[in-house]
Amino acid sequence: MIVDFGQLKKAYQKLSPMIGPTPLVYNEWLSQQYQCQVFLKLENMLPIGSFKMRGATYKISQLNAAEKKLGVLAVSAGNHAQGVAWAAQKFKIKATIIMPEGSPLTKIRNTESLGATVILKGKNIEECFEVAQEMMKKKKMIFVHPYHDPYVIAGQGTVAFELLEQLPEVDYVFSSIGGGGLVSGMGQVLKAKKAKAKVIAGQASGCSSMAQSLAAGKIITTNKAETFADGIRVKNVNEDMFKSLKSVVDSSHLVDDEKMAWAILQLMEKARVIAEGAGALPLALFDQLFQKNPKKFKGKKIVLVVCGGNIDVNLLERIIDRGLIESHRKIRISIPISDRPGVLHQLTKVIKDVGANILEVVHDRTSNETGITGTNVFFTLETKGEIHMKQLLEEMRKDFPLVKVIY
Amino acid sequence: MIVDFGQLKKAYQKLSPMIGPTPLVYNEWLSQQYQCQVFLKLENMLPIGSFKMRGATYKISQLNAAEKKLGVLAVSAGNHAQGVAWAAQKFKIKATIIMPEGSPLTKIRNTESLGATVILKGKNIEECFEVAQEMMKKKKMIFVHPYHDPYVIAGQGTVAFELLEQLPEVDYVFSSIGGGGLVSGMGQVLKAKKAKAKVIAGQASGCSSMAQSLAAGKIITTNKAETFADGIRVKNVNEDMFKSLKSVVDSSHLVDDEKMAWAILQLMEKARVIAEGAGALPLALFDQLFQKNPKKFKGKKIVLVVCGGNIDVNLLERIIDRGLIESHRKIRISIPISDRPGVLHQLTKVIKDVGANILEVVHDRTSNETGITGTNVFFTLETKGEIHMKQLLEEMRKDFPLVKVIY
Repeated sequence: MIVDFGQLKKAYQKLSPMIGPTPLVYNEWLSQQYQCQVFLKLENMLPIGSFKMRGATYKISQLNAAEKKLGVLAVSAGNHAQGVAWAAQKFKIKATIIMPEGSPLTKIRNTESLGATVILKGKNIEECFEVAQEMMKKKKMIFVHPYHDPYVIAGQGTVAFELLEQLPEVDYVFSSIGGGGLVSGMGQVLKAKKAKAKVIAGQASGCSSMAQSLAAGKIITTNKAETFADGIRVKNVNEDMFKSLKSVVDSSHLVDDEKMAWAILQLMEKARVIAEGAGALPLALFDQLFQKNPKKFKGKKIVLVVCGGNIDVNLLERIIDRGLIESHRKIRISIPISDRPGVLHQLTKVIKDVGANILEVVHDRTSNETGITGTNVFFTLETKGEIHMKQLLEEMRKDFPLVKVIY
Repeated sequence: MIVDFGQLKKAYQKLSPMIGPTPLVYNEWLSQQYQCQVFLKLENMLPIGSFKMRGATYKISQLNAAEKKLGVLAVSAGNHAQGVAWAAQKFKIKATIIMPEGSPLTKIRNTESLGATVILKGKNIEECFEVAQEMMKKKKMIFVHPYHDPYVIAGQGTVAFELLEQLPEVDYVFSSIGGGGLVSGMGQVLKAKKAKAKVIAGQASGCSSMAQSLAAGKIITTNKAETFADGIRVKNVNEDMFKSLKSVVDSSHLVDDEKMAWAILQLMEKARVIAEGAGALPLALFDQLFQKNPKKFKGKKIVLVVCGGNIDVNLLERIIDRGLIESHRKIRISIPISDRPGVLHQLTKVIKDVGANILEVVHDRTSNETGITGTNVFFTLETKGEIHMKQLLEEMRKDFPLVKVIY
């Protein structure tokens, strides 16, 4: 879906008094680590926590009075819902959003708190689209597609206009692909403005039709849509979007969920921002490409588009937990001991002396390892990292040589 | 410690090409909730994740060549250490930092990665100060005090210069107090520039000598320093700082650790930023004052200075966990059942039908409640919030009327 440059520019003129510019923040830790200049384009700092409000706002701004009176209809499990609701509220028009049954309460509430009517119908996004079509047969409304719409694409493209003002000499722009609206919009602006920036795009490996299609040069259908990054969980490739992305994306890649989770934690610890999976994908992808060829990026200006930050905190909790385990700041060990008074006290002394913190103690008396007079003791501990863990194990082995690390 | 306005201005001229401006981000959710305009001044987006680099950088920039050659010495458990290390690296001078024994590895590594030499000596900050004095008797170095220094205060004051350019009409500036450098610097700039902004300052209730002193109009010594907000864990009131704060702070208040933890979670969920305790205190305090008198802030422009974001992720994990429990998204229930095949299956069916997720199941067969043929079953569950929890309990009570909520 190719958009006329006049339209792209018009979108920027229209939106800039209403939205953004979002901060472009230089990150010193990442820059040092990767020996280049890493900047984060923080779309997660927008009112609804995602770039999606740009496209929705521009689309709605271009409706005429009669269309505005009809109100808008959208289908979304998350960010697009809030984007449309936000824009409709600004233009004082009615918005109806169809969300899948069982959507998280926070997302429903956020959308409603922006004045939209939420209808929970359909098991997944595909079914919601069908519900929308049925509804529009009965009642005329303006449908706001999440990406397949030139106005929506032009709206998302405003990210690139801002970026070129903030950092004209950018070398690489890393972004994630869902339906393709953001990358298409940004890419078209960058090419039209003859920026030297290369567009590197990534998709979740569990939901990667578009990335696979771009790599193959033709549309590939996978029908798999498995990733925790719900913002980019788009199953099917739209032909127009494919054509448009083909002309602006310099290379496209797959990123595992594990790696995205790692990037979320990195952004929390090194940039103090919350990114959702789709928003952390650019860092995950950059790291992936850097590991393969560090020289390529040396001294370059890299922009990672953190496209959104709407992630449930219980998911964040799991990501942190996994991160702590991987960096050996949370460990679990088992020790077979004889089951008599005083032995646990002996163990806790070693742990205290090394300065680790006990999170949990569990006894298992049914293990084969220990025999009838023994027990296995499991400790979950907080340590300061790998060196500290090794120090603890060394001390413990002096009296308890059979200590085992579970994780 | 009153600083000449010329010096404050000079600090801004010197620092602005090097540091900031940090983003001032309008927050829509908070603004709606509090019926006013809430802005976040994101000092946690600075390279070291805290405003502390401002004061350290200005101080070091004002040293003459001979002083620079001596190198700098500082005492800190966290942010000031990284601030001094960052500034010393920029000016290519030697920095030595004394940190308390047992400081978190991440903080030690971050400081070292900025090129500073870290010495771990002293059980707490007070002892580290003594170590520093001993060291300076043997070797001449320039001591960079974390707050009691006119250059450091002038550096921190640059936050207010930026703020007045970003939002000249600000009505209230909320900030936290540790040693007082930030509030003193910002307050002096705001008063000198005749800004209408009122300065509202807060301190952790477990470490509150300065707030108590300001409220009493004279120095009060408490000797208590208990708060998880390590960035503002400053035990003693410095007389110069007290005088300076007295002249610029409009009102000062105490904030509990619980409330700060709540604010950290709010900032994660509503602003997608990570704040440390001291950085979240302004939101906690604003909420506290709003609850008492909502009318006071109606329609006003409120700036919350998120002064830093350096918090360990394991602490964040606990804060999220507590927040999930408070919002009933994580619950623990107990149910006395008869100890025979099939009963747990009956229970898990109810849980499945309502759509809750099981995190843990524990049996306790020794409870008095259940008798010899029964057992208590404890479930830890993920739910979608209060309504969902009530729905689950209602369903469960149909077959298991004795279900109890533990949290």
